[in-house]
Amino acid sequence: MKKVELPKPYVIFLGDTQNILDAKTALGLLDWCKEDCIAQVSMPGCKIDLNLPELTPSQAAEAGAKSIVIGIAPTGGKINPKWRELLKEALSAGLHLVSGLHTDLEDDEILREAGNAGNSRLINLRKAPDCKQVASGKNRTGKRLLTVGTDCCVGKKYTALSIYKTMRELEFKTTFRATGQTGILISGEGIPIDAVVSDFVSGAAESLSPENEPDHWDIIEGQGSLFHPAYAAVTLGLIHGSQPDALILCHAATRTQIDEYPDFSIPTIPECIAKYEESAALTNPKSRVVGISINSSDLNLTARKEYLMELGALTKLPCFDPMSDSLTSFIETLRSY
Amino acid sequence: MKKVELPKPYVIFLGDTQNILDAKTALGLLDWCKEDCIAQVSMPGCKIDLNLPELTPSQAAEAGAKSIVIGIAPTGGKINPKWRELLKEALSAGLHLVSGLHTDLEDDEILREAGNAGNSRLINLRKAPDCKQVASGKNRTGKRLLTVGTDCCVGKKYTALSIYKTMRELEFKTTFRATGQTGILISGEGIPIDAVVSDFVSGAAESLSPENEPDHWDIIEGQGSLFHPAYAAVTLGLIHGSQPDALILCHAATRTQIDEYPDFSIPTIPECIAKYEESAALTNPKSRVVGISINSSDLNLTARKEYLMELGALTKLPCFDPMSDSLTSFIETLRSY
Repeated sequence: MKKVELPKPYVIFLGDTQNILDAKTALGLLDWCKEDCIAQVSMPGCKIDLNLPELTPSQAAEAGAKSIVIGIAPTGGKINPKWRELLKEALSAGLHLVSGLHTDLEDDEILREAGNAGNSRLINLRKAPDCKQVASGKNRTGKRLLTVGTDCCVGKKYTALSIYKTMRELEFKTTFRATGQTGILISGEGIPIDAVVSDFVSGAAESLSPENEPDHWDIIEGQGSLFHPAYAAVTLGLIHGSQPDALILCHAATRTQIDEYPDFSIPTIPECIAKYEESAALTNPKSRVVGISINSSDLNLTARKEYLMELGALTKLPCFDPMSDSLTSFIETLRSY
Repeated sequence: MKKVELPKPYVIFLGDTQNILDAKTALGLLDWCKEDCIAQVSMPGCKIDLNLPELTPSQAAEAGAKSIVIGIAPTGGKINPKWRELLKEALSAGLHLVSGLHTDLEDDEILREAGNAGNSRLINLRKAPDCKQVASGKNRTGKRLLTVGTDCCVGKKYTALSIYKTMRELEFKTTFRATGQTGILISGEGIPIDAVVSDFVSGAAESLSPENEPDHWDIIEGQGSLFHPAYAAVTLGLIHGSQPDALILCHAATRTQIDEYPDFSIPTIPECIAKYEESAALTNPKSRVVGISINSSDLNLTARKEYLMELGALTKLPCFDPMSDSLTSFIETLRSY
């Protein structure tokens, strides 16, 4: 299974976006890999400013950018025809075009031709490399940590990136392994695991976190949830292929039901822990949940403290909100894991 | 999610096959849908005879055949260039070409052109229709039975077809739902579930067994095994989307380890039952294993009887080998399920 690989540095395309919520991808890049973002390209009327140099695509290419990244996701998730002139200019100037939108870039004849002219690629982050690797189930050296969730959108990517960042600060040998579109943009490489054909999903996860030094940690971005009626298969395949030594359970403090699936309740945290450890045991019987990451943005400071303390007492595990808590002391405990 | 649909009746292509083991697909079709197979096409030196009329592709088309099916799978799983003349003749004569081999039919220029000339399709059973349906998790009327396995290749397809056949004889309202290549050939339609992108595998399973009359039974062909390190994700997605009311656990009597994965032991039968019921509970809390189908071909008659009796005593469930036992009395118990 080949990975998606994205040439850096980036210039971020903002179009004429009015709504900050549509610019989540751009903001995620600023949060996690600002050093890789050298400029922004926006259109008249754009209300978002990333405080990066405002350049034309050609100027960005001259300044050393290698790829132009669509940093926005308008409602509907499609490339707006109004953007085409600037994207064409970028491609002609030799910038690769990277998009996680639903539009199939390669179906757009104008962009395809511009890419050919500039010898630049159209990179669709929703497509997995076409490779057919069946999982071997064989153990491999190196340590692996996977974030798992009580539901989708509970902070699995954020938690993995926070742990990775802290590990780097503490001089662990570590690599972030991206499995979703924004994660791949941040990391510059990865596999969009939910786009892999189901027969090969565990094989893809194996190849994403290969054999490594015994004290090296792969920090793997989780996907979906075992309690989600549509996506549990993706989650299970990722767990089996990742063979995680350590799991971090991610949960949104006030959520009781699967988002948009009101008939599906989220089990109790101890039940979730048991289920994840049992599922991971197939390919790694020593796999354990070692911490709980809570998205507590819905709670005030007092309620938040209380929630984390009670959860810690219930589970006997480190509980934290990576948005507000330092992970240093927790990560230090993993040194001897 | 659209299904794969195959125009019947078939003419079966046998090439110049020497080894009966390479003709499993052809033999499966004879076993389960002989009435849909009107002729065979073979090449000089072929050692397999299905006792069907031997016709040329053009004669078969004139006789009413709608598709030519590759009934053989040589080592390597590819279309042999020697076959091309006859396949070309078939396509030119208006027969659709159906193949479950690894060769991408549409990459073969000669076949593609012949298909265009004859207005006939190249149907690759390893490709899922490109459709993106996320599972809803919503319950739907009608009853569903899914075969599940302790491993791959333990008789899930055979068991499902045997149950379907018996139900038809007993005048149940019933439909066989194919999820693999041979099953789709037999049924004439279905979805190759392991070829579906992992995000949509449960959605595909939902669309394969849609809402139906309350006393109608969908008999769904299972795939993979929850105990398989490479394929458990496929199995779980199929379970969640199928929302089976009844599960039949399939097992090969003498197998103790996952085939080709000697590090992976098959749990005890009661453990397998518990695991499948627990996994199915997410989308159908009433799902139960209602019978155990044993492939006992490795046992002699005495050992076979003893094995089934002991297993029945242990699990308190009907245990049978569909190759040798009548399913009538077991199926009758499902009438009031």
